[in-house]
Amino acid sequence: MLSELSPHLLAALYVVAITAEAMTAALVAGRRGMDWVGVCVIACVTALGGGSMRDVLLGHYPLTWVAHPEYLWITAVAALITALTASIMRHFRTAFLVLDAVGLVVFTVIGCQVALGMDLPMTIVLVSGMVTGCAGGVLRDVLCNRVPLIFRKELYASVSAVTGAIFTGLLALSVNVHLAVLVALGAGFVLRMVALRLNWNMPTFIYRDRP
Amino acid sequence: MLSELSPHLLAALYVVAITAEAMTAALVAGRRGMDWVGVCVIACVTALGGGSMRDVLLGHYPLTWVAHPEYLWITAVAALITALTASIMRHFRTAFLVLDAVGLVVFTVIGCQVALGMDLPMTIVLVSGMVTGCAGGVLRDVLCNRVPLIFRKELYASVSAVTGAIFTGLLALSVNVHLAVLVALGAGFVLRMVALRLNWNMPTFIYRDRP
Amino acid sequence: MLSELSPHLLAALYVVAITAEAMTAALVAGRRGMDWVGVCVIACVTALGGGSMRDVLLGHYPLTWVAHPEYLWITAVAALITALTASIMRHFRTAFLVLDAVGLVVFTVIGCQVALGMDLPMTIVLVSGMVTGCAGGVLRDVLCNRVPLIFRKELYASVSAVTGAIFTGLLALSVNVHLAVLVALGAGFVLRMVALRLNWNMPTFIYRDRP
Repeated sequence: MLSELSPHLLAALYVVAITAEAMTAALVAGRRGMDWVGVCVIACVTALGGGSMRDVLLGHYPLTWVAHPEYLWITAVAALITALTASIMRHFRTAFLVLDAVGLVVFTVIGCQVALGMDLPMTIVLVSGMVTGCAGGVLRDVLCNRVPLIFRKELYASVSAVTGAIFTGLLALSVNVHLAVLVALGAGFVLRMVALRLNWNMPTFIYRDRP
Repeated sequence: MLSELSPHLLAALYVVAITAEAMTAALVAGRRGMDWVGVCVIACVTALGGGSMRDVLLGHYPLTWVAHPEYLWITAVAALITALTASIMRHFRTAFLVLDAVGLVVFTVIGCQVALGMDLPMTIVLVSGMVTGCAGGVLRDVLCNRVPLIFRKELYASVSAVTGAIFTGLLALSVNVHLAVLVALGAGFVLRMVALRLNWNMPTFIYRDRP
Repeated sequence: MLSELSPHLLAALYVVAITAEAMTAALVAGRRGMDWVGVCVIACVTALGGGSMRDVLLGHYPLTWVAHPEYLWITAVAALITALTASIMRHFRTAFLVLDAVGLVVFTVIGCQVALGMDLPMTIVLVSGMVTGCAGGVLRDVLCNRVPLIFRKELYASVSAVTGAIFTGLLALSVNVHLAVLVALGAGFVLRMVALRLNWNMPTFIYRDRP
């Protein structure tokens, strides 16, 4: 049963995830006064950039959106609808945070699976998950000319690291891969929600040249 | 006749295009007070970065400038000459805009052709054209630490999208590929010139967190 | 004797180099108030990003850190130790500059060797060395949202270019490759130290739209 549930669940959650990332990215692009083409580009980069960077770094071709161009259309359309309905969207802030957390853990687990499928060592499996989960947001922030948020706030990258560590840890303990997917998704999602709720942050390292 | 004209025309226009992109990039780098090495690097990234990003995303190796190192020299020399003669160059603003428009449409059509040669679906052909046409300017603006211009102004990315759409549309209608190249180049160039002349912009999406 | 010395020396200096780059990157990240995950990411990108960009551009897979995940741990641990001991680290500014110069020339020579091993033309060998030597610092500055330092100051990219030119020049003169490595490393390092000591800079190109 698990072996049927986990691939379909991941595939469905992936579409939810790229849609959610595209919508939040559209709002960030709107804050910079971008035109509609810019909004679509930022949305595609945010939603699909993490997986693209992982595939380029691992030499894993073709990239997801090259093999499945429909993902480009999903993100672009989601971004345009968000831009057109931004005055309504502001009332759904909590829903966005929930969907964004889904995206983070889903991307991370998919990234781990890609590296596992290439028989790469565990460190790289973990890094592959983190790159897939976090690099899209980093690219978005670089294109919008701000210091990437995930380096400073919100435990974002840490949740990705923990999700990947749970997933690879369970596999190392010979747990069934489908069960490991579900446990990692659930644990990562709960951790992210708790972190947001309690406003957790990682210790920050502030350095000044003069004491 | 067309089958002889279009490849030679594209090859000649490509050299014109990378030279023009290198020259405009050198002026942008000068505004940031970069040294001569920085000017050369920014010029190479602007002129050759779009094609490089396309090739990396599509797994299309070797990259153009790796197979043809002379393109690196052309861009670097063009950038240095521009830096040395900047006080004269300011009088040729219109010529730069015309050459930059040539670059945009030439890069776009070449990008479409590369994806077509790899038998990729039409959506990817279009995206390949846009990445080739626009990514160099995006990389230039990221390295110069500003929000990429094409996301905010000047219909730049839109002209690239329309040029690619005309090209792929004509091919879908079974028009001869060489004729499609010439029509797409001409239509895209005219659209860009008209857009500049009439100061057209795409609708901008401005979003504030509080109404 | 040289043929035994140069590979071991390069391998040992490479570990010194990534450690040094990770430590200086951690201090830059601290200036931006990043959390510990951000510090580790910036350190890995700075220390391993130049080689990664070279490998992606040349299609040279697998990337160094994918084949040797221990390099990721070395850079992450070095960055965390630096963050924890930053108040002490400020007293070792000169040592950092020396180690950073070692990193620059070692990365450059390794980058040249990778391109040589792929039988690429001399221009690409030179560019491969410069990308390996300089791109990590560029990526660090882009992620920290500032105009890359190497485009404006300190003769950094120029030292990399000269080191690569000496290396490829000696090979073109049929000098033994191991001797060429040692001479290029030594000459590049001395040039960098002299440039820092005498505060040399490349001519800067400053351009204003209005005279």
